[in-house]
Order: sequence, then structure tokens, then C-alpha cells
Amino acid sequence: MRHTPHIERHFTSSAIVRDVVIGMSDGLTVPFALAAGLTGAVAVSNIIVTAGLAEIAAGAIAMGLGGYLAAKSEAEHYASERRREGREVREIPDEEREEVARVFRGYGLTNEQISPVVEALSSRPQDWIDFMMRFELGLEEPQPERARNSALTIATSYVAGGLIPLAPYMLFSSPHEALWFSIGVTIVALFLFGYVKGKFTTARPLRSALQTALIGAIAAGAAFLIATAIA
Amino acid sequence: MRHTPHIERHFTSSAIVRDVVIGMSDGLTVPFALAAGLTGAVAVSNIIVTAGLAEIAAGAIAMGLGGYLAAKSEAEHYASERRREGREVREIPDEEREEVARVFRGYGLTNEQISPVVEALSSRPQDWIDFMMRFELGLEEPQPERARNSALTIATSYVAGGLIPLAPYMLFSSPHEALWFSIGVTIVALFLFGYVKGKFTTARPLRSALQTALIGAIAAGAAFLIATAIA
Repeated sequence: MRHTPHIERHFTSSAIVRDVVIGMSDGLTVPFALAAGLTGAVAVSNIIVTAGLAEIAAGAIAMGLGGYLAAKSEAEHYASERRREGREVREIPDEEREEVARVFRGYGLTNEQISPVVEALSSRPQDWIDFMMRFELGLEEPQPERARNSALTIATSYVAGGLIPLAPYMLFSSPHEALWFSIGVTIVALFLFGYVKGKFTTARPLRSALQTALIGAIAAGAAFLIATAIA
Repeated sequence: MRHTPHIERHFTSSAIVRDVVIGMSDGLTVPFALAAGLTGAVAVSNIIVTAGLAEIAAGAIAMGLGGYLAAKSEAEHYASERRREGREVREIPDEEREEVARVFRGYGLTNEQISPVVEALSSRPQDWIDFMMRFELGLEEPQPERARNSALTIATSYVAGGLIPLAPYMLFSSPHEALWFSIGVTIVALFLFGYVKGKFTTARPLRSALQTALIGAIAAGAAFLIATAIA
């Protein structure tokens, strides 16, 4: 969410898309890799299903609740920085005026060109503080009500993603049989997911699809090798 | 990394700290919860160690490689938006001048106060593009060389975090015995980690410590309940 809220011409992905992407890319990858890894180490599918569901629950809670608290603390950080700017605008206005000027000097403007803006801002304290928050500190006002929705979207996407690679292990009692179906459906799902993600975030969706599928394959391969080596 | 690069007065956490936090908070939580969950379902520790190491490998790769590619595509996004601004500054300069003015009008400034800045920027195309990237689009120039270091830091922190809850299962063959040691060391580690994280990112490290430990406990409790229910 680095875009300005009021000018959205270049806006390429909504907050919900972003949260689905965050949850689903890990949700498809990690449970898939864990299940594939355990296939190299255990003889029955139900242990893999148990481990997979435990991982999905843990991952969804860690990402969702972790994200929720991070968003809350970001909102608090913003509020405290805002109070600090407000204090500084009242108590050391000359230094703050100099900071406004410094922002513009960075773009090669002269003091004469800058001073009308500096003077105008210093007569409007609230706008001045808003200006400093965004242009000196680069902080956008967070939307605290988004934190809960964001956490739920991320957690739900993680669960939805994680159930795809796990489903074959619920249907086949032999893990080696289940593994091939799991690889099949998950690589297809990673590819489609990477493609849709790429449509929203880059100009090259096909490359995004291949990269996403490749990460899943590498993670699953590494987990399989480790599990086989120590089992 | 929403702070400006050149004015770091309010700068509170370095990029490395941020990457360690990202990797370690999930690394401590998910393998801990997975191992605790499996304790409710399997009779020997070595399956838990296998599943835990497979999860650590998968999680570290998904987070590290996923983060690396995300950083790369963010850098490409920045470059393509920059080319687009460059084209617009050349081809539709009047509209771009109006966009500069609109940024300032949002802060209650009048056209008379704004016009010196608009005129000055339009005579300096490179600074104008820089200005639009940051103040219209809110985009900071990414540092592509950071992508690889960032990925390695996140992955290493995930592995380091994940080995803490898993270590007791390597030492005790009975998972129920190992579980209590795992809970003990992990809650202490989460608490310390949350405290240090809170020192860097908030004004209330103790609350951060309690929240971090609580997320781990909730994730582990949920994983345990699910695994016990289906085993």
C-alpha cells in the first residue's frame, strides 16, 4: 500500500488482492512441501494429513494474527509520529520550516521558489503536519479497520491454499500414490495462482506463473531430500 | 521501509532488523506449533523432527525465495512507472504540471503559492520525474542489491528460529517429554524476541513480548487440538 489514496491512476492491485496473494502463496507452497517431504519418511497418509492440517492451522494463525498485530502497531507508530510532528510544529517551527525547505531543495529548487509554499504551510498547522507526515517521513495514514479484514483474508487464503496439496493425502492411504496427485494439482494451482498474481502486479504474468510454480517445486524438493535423508 | 532515505531522524529500524523479525517470528511460531500439534498425534519424536525440518526447509525457501522475487518485481515495477512518468513529462507536460499542483492543493495551498514550484520543476525534467515518483505515486526507489541479502537474512532467521522449538525433540525420544521442554524454551525465546522486536519498532516492548508469546501459544494450541482431534 504505497500508493497515495487520492490519486489512483497507476493503482495496480487492491488491498484484498494483496492479502489473498500473501496468504495463498505461502499456503500453497509450505503445506505442499511439508506433505511431499513427509512422503519420503512415513508409510501412511494419515500422519501427513495430521501434520499438514496442524501446519495449516499454525501458519494461518501466525500470518493472520501476526499481520493483525503488525497493522495495529503500525497505526500506533503513525499516531505517535503524528503527535511528535504536531509538537515540533508548535515548539520548534523554524526548524520544521527548514525541513520543508530541505525536501524541496532536494529537487533542485531555490529558496525563492520554495518560500511561498513554506510560508503558506506554516499558516495552516494541520495541513503542515499532514505534509510532514507524508513528504518528510514518507508515512501514509494506516486504516486500522483494515487490520481485522486483512488478517482474516490472509488466514483464509492460507487455509484455502493449503488444503489443495493436502486433499490427495485425504483420498489415498498410500502417501506415494497421493504424492503424484498432490504434485499435479499443486503445480497447476501454483501456476494459475502465479499467473493471476502476475496479471495484477506485473506486466509479465507468464513469468510470474513459472516463478511461483518453481518456488513450490524447489521447496517441495528440498523438504523431500531432508526428510528422506534423516528418516 | 516507508522512510525517506535522506532524512532519518525518525528512523526506527534498519532493513536487517526488519528481515530478521520477518523470518524469526514465523520461524519460531510455525515449527513450534507443528511440533506441538504432532505430539498429540504420534508416538515417536523422530517423525516430529522429520516433519519439523521439512517444514523449516519449506518455510525458509518460500519466504526467502518468495521475498527475493517480490523485491525483484518491485524494482521492475518502479522502473516501469518511472519510464511512464518520463514519457508523460515529455508528452503531456500540462497534465503533469496540473498533477503537481493537485498534490499541493490537497494541503490547502493556492495556485499563486504553488506556481513557483510547478514552474521550477517543469524546467528540471529529471527532478520533476523524481518528484512525481515520490509525491504523486508514493514510490521509493528500491535497492535491487538488497533483494539477495534480504532473502538470505529472512531464510537464515527462519531456520534459526525454527531449530529452537525442534531441539528438544532431537534430544528426547518421547514426544510428550520433549513437548514440555519445547514449550519452555520457545515461550522464553518468543518473549525475548518479542521484547527486542518491540524495542526496535514500538514504544512498548513488554507488550510486544507478551503478544509475540501469545501468538505462539495460540498457534501451538490450535495445532495440538486439530492434530489430537483427527489422529
